[in-house]
Amino acid sequence: MDRVLTNINMITLDGDTGYQVINDAMIGIEKDRIAFAGHKEHFDCHGHPDVVDCQGALVTPGLIDCHTHLVFAGNRATEFEQRLNGVPYEEIAKAGGGILSTVKATREASEDTLYRLARQRLQGLKNDGVTTVEIKSGYGLTLDDELKMLRVARRIGEMPDINVSTTLLAAHALPPEYSDDPNSYIQFVCDEIIPAAAQENLADAVDVFCEGIGFSTQQCQQVFRAAQKHGLALKGHTEQLSNLGGSAMAARMGALSVDHIEYLDNEGVAALAACGTVATLLPGAFYFLRENQMPPIDQLRQLNVPMAIATDFNPGTSPIASIRTMMNMACTFFRMTPEECLQGVTTNAAQALGMSEFRGQIREGMQADLAIWNLSHPAELSYRIGVPDLKARVVNGDLFIHQHSER
Amino acid sequence: MDRVLTNINMITLDGDTGYQVINDAMIGIEKDRIAFAGHKEHFDCHGHPDVVDCQGALVTPGLIDCHTHLVFAGNRATEFEQRLNGVPYEEIAKAGGGILSTVKATREASEDTLYRLARQRLQGLKNDGVTTVEIKSGYGLTLDDELKMLRVARRIGEMPDINVSTTLLAAHALPPEYSDDPNSYIQFVCDEIIPAAAQENLADAVDVFCEGIGFSTQQCQQVFRAAQKHGLALKGHTEQLSNLGGSAMAARMGALSVDHIEYLDNEGVAALAACGTVATLLPGAFYFLRENQMPPIDQLRQLNVPMAIATDFNPGTSPIASIRTMMNMACTFFRMTPEECLQGVTTNAAQALGMSEFRGQIREGMQADLAIWNLSHPAELSYRIGVPDLKARVVNGDLFIHQHSER
Ligand SMILES: [Zn+2]
Ligand SMILES: [Zn+2]
Repeated sequence: MDRVLTNINMITLDGDTGYQVINDAMIGIEKDRIAFAGHKEHFDCHGHPDVVDCQGALVTPGLIDCHTHLVFAGNRATEFEQRLNGVPYEEIAKAGGGILSTVKATREASEDTLYRLARQRLQGLKNDGVTTVEIKSGYGLTLDDELKMLRVARRIGEMPDINVSTTLLAAHALPPEYSDDPNSYIQFVCDEIIPAAAQENLADAVDVFCEGIGFSTQQCQQVFRAAQKHGLALKGHTEQLSNLGGSAMAARMGALSVDHIEYLDNEGVAALAACGTVATLLPGAFYFLRENQMPPIDQLRQLNVPMAIATDFNPGTSPIASIRTMMNMACTFFRMTPEECLQGVTTNAAQALGMSEFRGQIREGMQADLAIWNLSHPAELSYRIGVPDLKARVVNGDLFIHQHSER
Repeated sequence: MDRVLTNINMITLDGDTGYQVINDAMIGIEKDRIAFAGHKEHFDCHGHPDVVDCQGALVTPGLIDCHTHLVFAGNRATEFEQRLNGVPYEEIAKAGGGILSTVKATREASEDTLYRLARQRLQGLKNDGVTTVEIKSGYGLTLDDELKMLRVARRIGEMPDINVSTTLLAAHALPPEYSDDPNSYIQFVCDEIIPAAAQENLADAVDVFCEGIGFSTQQCQQVFRAAQKHGLALKGHTEQLSNLGGSAMAARMGALSVDHIEYLDNEGVAALAACGTVATLLPGAFYFLRENQMPPIDQLRQLNVPMAIATDFNPGTSPIASIRTMMNMACTFFRMTPEECLQGVTTNAAQALGMSEFRGQIREGMQADLAIWNLSHPAELSYRIGVPDLKARVVNGDLFIHQHSER
C-alpha cells in the first residue's frame, strides 16, 4: 500500500441508495487505486510510512462535473450587461453577439490561449472538490477548430490533478459558412469531423444540440450513427426549450446521458428508464435563463432513472464554475435532496461519462479519486456555498492539499 | 508615499453614476490612505522603493458586505435536508429546529469557537474581494450572549485584512424565556442590552426584525429610540415578508439602511428617498426562500434611492458566503445592472454602514481598501461565479496577495 488515509468519516455512495456512511474509517491506496476502504478495525496501518491523519474530515468520492464547455475564448460579460441595460437581443446579435461571438473568438485563439483560459476556469471547479471533468468542443464548428478545442481539452487532462473526458460537440450551432444549409453541415460533421476526431483519439463521446434553434432529431440521429460507426459514446443536449423527442431517440441509440431535459415528457422518461440512460440536470442554465419549466424530477425518481447534476459551464447560459452552487440550486429550484445531489455529482455523473466501473464511489478497486472536506455532514455540501470547505483532493492516488494563503 | 500600484485599469466609482473608469492608472498609498489615484501621466513613481506592477489588472474599491450574520454556532444543514426529504416544518420546529436551534448552539459556544467558525466563513467573503464586513448579533438573545457575539465580531475586526462594523440585533427573535411576553423582552433590550453594548463600545449600530414573525413596528421604534439615546446608528430588517411600515418608520428616524424590503410600497420608497436611507437588497434570502415578491427596483431607481447588495449570510435563509454570487443573483432575479451591483457592494454599501466619507470609492483621502482582479471588464464581477478571479486585496494600505496553492 502506498498511502493510507486515517481518521475519516467516509461517504462511500457504494450502494443503490443513501450516502453509505462509515465513520472512523480508513482508506488504503495502492498506486492509483483504492486497495482498502472501510472501518479502521478491519485494517492495520501501524508502521506504514505514509499515513495521512485526516483529523475526522468528511471524505467523499472526488466530485465529477459531467457537462461543461470550459474551452472557449472571448467575453460575453458586456453582452450580459447590455441586455440588463435594455439593449434588445436582436441588436446584440446583429452586432455579432451571442454564440457566434464565442465561435469567432475561439477560432481566432491559439491553443495556448484556450488552454490558459480553461485552466483558470477549471480552478474554480477544483476548489469545489472536482477531480473529473467533461469538456465539450462546439465553438469551433470547422474541422480544424473543433479538433483544436479537443486538443486543448486533452492537454488539460494531462494535468496530474484532474481527469478529463472529452466530447465532440460539432453539432452545437450552425456555423455562418453553412447558414442556409444545415444538412450539408451535418453531412460534413459526419463525414469529416467525427472521423478525424476518432482517428486522432481526441473524443470520448459525441454530443448534439437537439432543439428548434439547434438541429432536428433526424439530424442528430445522423450524427449519432456516424459516432457509433467510429466507436464513440453518445450524449445529447435535449428537451431544453421544447419537446422534440431527442432524449428518447438518444436513449434508444444507447446514449450515456441526455442533458437539460426540462421539457421531457413521461414517454421520454420511460425511454431513459428502459435504456439505462442518465438524466443530467443543469440548474445553472435553468437559473441563468430564468426558466420556469421544471425537469420531470418525480417521474425520473419513480422510474429510478439516475440523475446527474453538472455546471454546464459556458459563456452564454451558465458562467458558473461551481459544482456546489449547482447542488444547492438543484435543491432550491428542483427540490432534489442533498443525497440525490451528491449522487448526481459522483456515482451518477460517473455513469453519464461511462466511468461507473472505476470512478464515482469509494470502494476497493476504484480509482483513488477523493475529496476531503472540512465539514461534518454530507448535506452541508449542498447546503452552503462560498466557504472554502475543501481541505484536499486525491486524484488517481496523488494527494493535492488545497491551501488558501494570503501574504 | 509608502506604496505605489502601477499599470492598473481602475474603477473608481467616484461619481454619481457609472463605473468611472481610468485606464493606465496608478494609485499611491500613504499609510492607510489613498494619496493619489489617477492616470499615470499625472504621477511620477520613478525610483520609488515599493512599486507593485499590477500588469493591467482591474482594480475596484474593496468590496463591502453590509449585512451578515457571520457569528453563530450549530448546523442547520440537516434541517435543510429534512425539509427536502419532506419532513413538515412544524415537526422540525418541535424537535428544536429553526432559529432557536442556532440560538441554543450559540449560547453554548465559547467565544473561541464562535471566532473560529466565523473566521472560516469570512474567508469565503475575502476570496470574493471583500475588505469590509458588517456582522450582527442576534442569536444570543440574553445580555451575556449578545455581548459575547459582538465581542467575537470585534475580535474578527482585529485581523489586519478586514474591517468590521458591528450591529446589535437583540430584537431578532423572541427568546424562549420571554415566549409569552414580547414587550418585556423589548424593554429588557432597551434597558439592559443596548446600554451595555454601548458602554463597552461593542456595537456601531442597532438592528431590528420588524415582521409579523418578529417584532411590531412600535416595538422596533422603541428599540431605535433606546439606540439613539446611546448614540448608535439604526438599521432594520423590514418589509421582507409583509408590509408593516417598518422601513418608513426607520427612515424617518434616520436609519442608515432598511434591508430586504421586498414588500416596500411607493410610500415607503418615498420615505427612503426623503430621508437618505439606503435600500439594502438581499437576493440570497430571496433565492433560498424561493420568494416571488420582487423588491421595488424601478421605484427605487426613479427616486434615486441608493441600493446596496449584501449576502445576509446566515444559517437559516442565506448560507451563501459569496458577494459575487449575490451580484449575479441581483442581476438575474432583480434585473439590476452590473453597474448597479458594483455600486451596491462599494459606494452604496459604505453608505449603508455610515462609511461614505472614507470607504467605498477610489479617490484621494479615502482608506486604501482595494480589490485587484484578474479580469478585463467590471461587468465580469457580476457575470461569472466560481472562478478565482481575485489576485489581491489592499486593506487599510496593506497588501494581501491571494494565492491558491496546491501541493
Ligand atoms: Zn451544454
Ligand atoms: Zn439578516
